Amino acid sequence: MAKQEHILIIGAGLCGSLLALRMAQRGYKITLMEKRPDLRAVHQDAGRSINLALSDRGLKGIRLVGLEDRVKDLCIPMNGRMLHDKESNTLFSPYSGRTDEYINSISRTDLNIMLLNAADEYDTLQVHFNQACTNVDLKNATATFTDYHTKEEQTITADIILGADGAGSAVRKSMYMSRDFLFSFSQDYLGHGYKELTFPPAENGGYRTEKNALHIWPRGRDMIIALPNLDGSFTVTLFIDYKDAPDSFASLDSPAAITEFFTRQFPDAIPMMPELVKEYEENPVGPLGTIKCHPWSAFGKTCILGDAAHAIVPFYGQGMNASFEDVVVFDEMLDAFSDQGWEKVFKEFEKTRKPDTDAIANLAVDNFHEMKEHTAHPMFQEKRKLETQFEKEFPTEYYSKYSLVTFNEAIGYKEAMTRGRAQNKAILNLLDDGLLPDSLSLKAKLKKVQQATEDILHDDAIAGNI
Amino acid sequence: MAKQEHILIIGAGLCGSLLALRMAQRGYKITLMEKRPDLRAVHQDAGRSINLALSDRGLKGIRLVGLEDRVKDLCIPMNGRMLHDKESNTLFSPYSGRTDEYINSISRTDLNIMLLNAADEYDTLQVHFNQACTNVDLKNATATFTDYHTKEEQTITADIILGADGAGSAVRKSMYMSRDFLFSFSQDYLGHGYKELTFPPAENGGYRTEKNALHIWPRGRDMIIALPNLDGSFTVTLFIDYKDAPDSFASLDSPAAITEFFTRQFPDAIPMMPELVKEYEENPVGPLGTIKCHPWSAFGKTCILGDAAHAIVPFYGQGMNASFEDVVVFDEMLDAFSDQGWEKVFKEFEKTRKPDTDAIANLAVDNFHEMKEHTAHPMFQEKRKLETQFEKEFPTEYYSKYSLVTFNEAIGYKEAMTRGRAQNKAILNLLDDGLLPDSLSLKAKLKKVQQATEDILHDDAIAGNI
Repeated sequence: MAKQEHILIIGAGLCGSLLALRMAQRGYKITLMEKRPDLRAVHQDAGRSINLALSDRGLKGIRLVGLEDRVKDLCIPMNGRMLHDKESNTLFSPYSGRTDEYINSISRTDLNIMLLNAADEYDTLQVHFNQACTNVDLKNATATFTDYHTKEEQTITADIILGADGAGSAVRKSMYMSRDFLFSFSQDYLGHGYKELTFPPAENGGYRTEKNALHIWPRGRDMIIALPNLDGSFTVTLFIDYKDAPDSFASLDSPAAITEFFTRQFPDAIPMMPELVKEYEENPVGPLGTIKCHPWSAFGKTCILGDAAHAIVPFYGQGMNASFEDVVVFDEMLDAFSDQGWEKVFKEFEKTRKPDTDAIANLAVDNFHEMKEHTAHPMFQEKRKLETQFEKEFPTEYYSKYSLVTFNEAIGYKEAMTRGRAQNKAILNLLDDGLLPDSLSLKAKLKKVQQATEDILHDDAIAGNI
Repeated sequence: MAKQEHILIIGAGLCGSLLALRMAQRGYKITLMEKRPDLRAVHQDAGRSINLALSDRGLKGIRLVGLEDRVKDLCIPMNGRMLHDKESNTLFSPYSGRTDEYINSISRTDLNIMLLNAADEYDTLQVHFNQACTNVDLKNATATFTDYHTKEEQTITADIILGADGAGSAVRKSMYMSRDFLFSFSQDYLGHGYKELTFPPAENGGYRTEKNALHIWPRGRDMIIALPNLDGSFTVTLFIDYKDAPDSFASLDSPAAITEFFTRQFPDAIPMMPELVKEYEENPVGPLGTIKCHPWSAFGKTCILGDAAHAIVPFYGQGMNASFEDVVVFDEMLDAFSDQGWEKVFKEFEKTRKPDTDAIANLAVDNFHEMKEHTAHPMFQEKRKLETQFEKEFPTEYYSKYSLVTFNEAIGYKEAMTRGRAQNKAILNLLDDGLLPDSLSLKAKLKKVQQATEDILHDDAIAGNI
């Protein structure tokens, strides 16, 4: 594959910007087209995923393009979950027993701006904003765009197209509509939606609650979470049913109903939300959906990555991390297969990557239930306490499911899921059977958990082979 | 809900015809619209699902409308799988140790004709053929149809619409396109496609191989199967990859390649297929897809059933059976909830039924691997032998997964799947661990399998609750 090939990348969000940057670094000529305006020049909409959790898999991508130092200034470490119960008690539950394992709260906008600024440093990379993709010719790597302001159309033909245009991907839609091949596709919505709210900074400019934590108010069916921002505020997200539930977006239809619900369910959050009713009424409700599809590429000419190929619900804090890890894996495939042509690169990319993105999609739905429900459950808390002790005392011997997914970027999501689920099943059953009594040493407990985990994996493998 | 309400049923295939008949029996006024011509008046296309396996769940539906006696004349009992290996040896593996448990080969056309003839006996049921549905107004129970011959359009408004219009459902598409609610949807294709072929009757008019069996030639990746027809012929179905495999629809592109492949893989089938190359070249390749969606109804005015709501791959022989069981469950919901209005009936129908149709969709994909691969595996055959012995000696104490799914119509597919999978895991692990030695009595083996199954179900439940 000769360098100076021309790559058309559709979507200059987080995934597309990082991908464009990396492809420019590899020597390709890049045209990067973005539907929305340049976010360095416009005021941002409130109520749309203002902050995100950046962790080890995402940092691999940032490191790949040499921006690790720059990103640090944008990060607020979150060392664990701060659980808030209905009596306003709090319980801090670390993400890991290893103190160097934490996740980072980061502004989507700040991160995207950092990537776009870095992209501007490459003469071979041209970014165009306000360009909505209206048609993709998959076979010929040709796409048509309409300018938001002038309504003018332009058609671009490149050597290949990479679609990084998010959950509503126009490139994926053209694959769905194609009659030339069978396209497997799923969109799966939770019955819950989300709405963003805010804890503004305290009057002294500081944080109204613990800065270095991801705050959760788990209420079984409903939940709010809060992540810190650099300016002292927190972005708060409410997750409740759309309808047909005791409390839902349909039923909370008046200032009185909104205030009553928050007072009843999240009493210690109320004083931190002076603009609650106003924000609730102004901010939109967003859907929570999972998208999977196959194949990710067509005719060796067009390939999709990131949310375009695998949008997930936000409950593992892995959406952006998975997209950035896509770029790392795609880059590895170029190292290994670029001499065999794009079709080979695309197919190997999907073959390597899809089992892992399918796994994180499923893990993220698991975590929806874990966060709103299980974090408040005594047996879950006992499990987490034990796992934290294991990780602290035997840091090279034990990794919880959360650690495997979030901090062990050397293994894929699928392996993390398989091992993590087996460990959880082992611990919960040992606890339920009373087989981890206090009389056992921590080391003896660890051995029991490890043995039970191996037994579960072995039994599943035997049954799975036939 | 007053009787004499007007129900518009879209699709007069197997599900729509049975549903229309039952709804007419309940006293509703029915308009039944079908895209295709009346199959009583036209020659049938070759190569499209000529025969099907009718079993207990489907028979429940037939019994509901009082046609059990009439259907018997159309059925050929199949008592088990006849496995054909590459050396042309055969091994008969019964579907159950209970001799009264078998499935039936039946012609799709004959069955549909029987249902349409029965429908004609109701003055309150009008069937119209050659009417393609082009638009559905979900909210107002209004649909538009175009006549295939005259191209004339007509619009029908009813009290409710029931969409039984199959895997390519126009009613479901209108739900997918709706902007009024979130529609979860998946279409999942296997990498394999299928093609229908034939063993014609023997020259004396008899069958060329065992009549009362479902014949399988399992070859790991590829497979043919054969089901008997009343006229002495068998309908044969070939399942191979579309492409990118040693043998595929893409690679078998000449008479020589076709003949070489069948001679190598299915030597004892060759003499039974005098028209192999001609049929192979003339008959189409069909896709193998699973469709799931949610919700199944909109606005309390429109509801989908059968393949329109849950198309599955054919490997458990349950597609038609599941659709007929839908009609039985829908009828039960009318008994229980019709006084609370259609919206309640539709929602309770989906709530009751969807976990079971999701389960059979997954079971059918499992069975794709089981049929082409595992049936030829020694440990699988050992398991089946043991299960057949259990069913024969302890007919009220043991039901294999296949029996639970196929013959135990009193429990749903989901329960059959959960228990059946646990039993398989128990037996395979006991065999692998050498814990079912010949020295044990059959009764002792059964006890061990039952205990291990309960342990698996218990451990899964503990882990699943957190």
